[in-house]
Amino acid sequence: MTDAGTAVQQPAASPAGGRRGRRAVDVPTLVERARDGDARAVARLISLVEDASPLLRDVAAALAPHTGHAQVLGLTGSPGVGKSTTTTALVRALRRAGKRVGVLAVDPSSPFSGGALLGDRVRMQDHAGDPGVFIRSMASRGHLGGLAWATPQALRVLDAAGCDVVLVETVGVGQSELEIASLADTTLVLVAPGMGDGIQAAKAGILEVADVFVVNKADRDGADQTVRDLRYMLSLGGRHSEAGHWRPPIVKTVAARDAGNGIDEVLAKVDQHREWLTASGEGLRRRSERAAAEIEAIAVAALRERMGDVHGSAALTSLADRVVAGETDPYRAADDLLDQL
Amino acid sequence: MTDAGTAVQQPAASPAGGRRGRRAVDVPTLVERARDGDARAVARLISLVEDASPLLRDVAAALAPHTGHAQVLGLTGSPGVGKSTTTTALVRALRRAGKRVGVLAVDPSSPFSGGALLGDRVRMQDHAGDPGVFIRSMASRGHLGGLAWATPQALRVLDAAGCDVVLVETVGVGQSELEIASLADTTLVLVAPGMGDGIQAAKAGILEVADVFVVNKADRDGADQTVRDLRYMLSLGGRHSEAGHWRPPIVKTVAARDAGNGIDEVLAKVDQHREWLTASGEGLRRRSERAAAEIEAIAVAALRERMGDVHGSAALTSLADRVVAGETDPYRAADDLLDQL
Repeated sequence: MTDAGTAVQQPAASPAGGRRGRRAVDVPTLVERARDGDARAVARLISLVEDASPLLRDVAAALAPHTGHAQVLGLTGSPGVGKSTTTTALVRALRRAGKRVGVLAVDPSSPFSGGALLGDRVRMQDHAGDPGVFIRSMASRGHLGGLAWATPQALRVLDAAGCDVVLVETVGVGQSELEIASLADTTLVLVAPGMGDGIQAAKAGILEVADVFVVNKADRDGADQTVRDLRYMLSLGGRHSEAGHWRPPIVKTVAARDAGNGIDEVLAKVDQHREWLTASGEGLRRRSERAAAEIEAIAVAALRERMGDVHGSAALTSLADRVVAGETDPYRAADDLLDQL
Repeated sequence: MTDAGTAVQQPAASPAGGRRGRRAVDVPTLVERARDGDARAVARLISLVEDASPLLRDVAAALAPHTGHAQVLGLTGSPGVGKSTTTTALVRALRRAGKRVGVLAVDPSSPFSGGALLGDRVRMQDHAGDPGVFIRSMASRGHLGGLAWATPQALRVLDAAGCDVVLVETVGVGQSELEIASLADTTLVLVAPGMGDGIQAAKAGILEVADVFVVNKADRDGADQTVRDLRYMLSLGGRHSEAGHWRPPIVKTVAARDAGNGIDEVLAKVDQHREWLTASGEGLRRRSERAAAEIEAIAVAALRERMGDVHGSAALTSLADRVVAGETDPYRAADDLLDQL
């Protein structure tokens, strides 16, 4: 980090960048190093996007030409279904196939959590030190809502770093399935026998987001019943019965076994799904929609920031006081606020 | 609804208003009727704001001069702590004191849910038919996120309808405590013995939002321990130890008992809190902040709508495709999008 050249000195007083201190950051050099597989450079870039550093825009611009290669796999499911074990088994199988793999764990309950840097402070022991695996927890920073913001950029870092596959692991609660579905090319939904996941899945709209169902812990009682439940629910759903649509397969796994039973079949289904994405044009459509949503989110945030400059100012306070007094209503006040932008 | 005058014909093709069909709506007359305590008019106005009717702005403008009177009480807590029972007991006590009461149940698990109209289809039997009580479930419409939008307007309807107190009941998960705290003048946080609520409360930031703690089901084992736990956690928190700050009292209740044990004490604490809000100026500050947040949210939504006109258009699609191709990055694309607004 001692390079001169285009090095940018982060102002120490910057609210977002202050945390990283005064170290000069040379974004193009960092991106070059990341592309060479330098784990520290990858970690640094992800930190920059995660911390919404003032250099975020420079990072995004420098990454853009080197993205679009990685296949993004989303993994979601309720706590206890074995997401982390499955992630470990998938990484192992992908490494055997010679793929470079990235893992983004955006699950507060994940064992990968705790502000883990790439390759260290990580309990995924058998991959620690493997230069073909990048692991990053997004759990410890900010709230979950903020992940919708940082995760696409972190994905781009791993993509530019040459990852063939990036696994994004999220806990299956609330809106996170929807987020993962909008991030991933292929979404794996994990369920386990006897957890009432079938009903929960239907409730949470998981049926709508799953491209592949994985019934993990399939050596337990009730695995076949879970498969039947899922099959029945899929038969009720409209989306998958239409011609030309992808019908989500259901694969049974025992990810905790040494051999990772069923994991190769999961990857085979993922490959089939990838082929379908390409052949149907759905893959490009999904990526384009994802980019459009991201552009919109950034634009809205930029506008909100401009209003933030207004917020706290006399203008907004005075408008708010007039609403409280019943002299105007919030809609007219919002018009007035926008007129001042 | 056969009035001529300023009656506005809703266009049948309007995406937001279509659901209500072609009925003419005379907003000023509706507001007049609501102010006279006409439950149907109140229900109709809440539907208009909930459905984001094209008349929303007219409704907001017509309500504004008649608002600011109602005291807003937020009620939150985990499922099972007895929120609905407590709401019922509070309504009964407030009615005995001659107050006009509104209830907004924004809790999907509430027995008041199911698209209940005011006073009907409601299981709050002892208040059905009481013209001094308005009950509205906001549970069945849209997602929880949308409530942040509709609830302040629904509050204004009940305020304009002459409610002295409006109880807003939300389930205590995720962000909803924060939402309720930003809506309410006084926030009651309900806990029950032996539910591990103490720890959960600390986790969820409930300590920060509570103005009054209610330990309900206080006839159960462990009630005193729960009170001690809360007291201990409050002693650790910074906010409440400062001079001039409100120190949240802890009240034990058995809301399910006929007499609603402890409910009068809860209301006494609420009154004390109200006096403190007035004396300290905090009440006006909270209402002003609430209005400012609402104005900002409406302004952001308006901007998003303008972008929505762009979304799906050739411009955004083309920008998104260029991001996918790595020809630009989402930040530059967002700038381009904003330039087109």
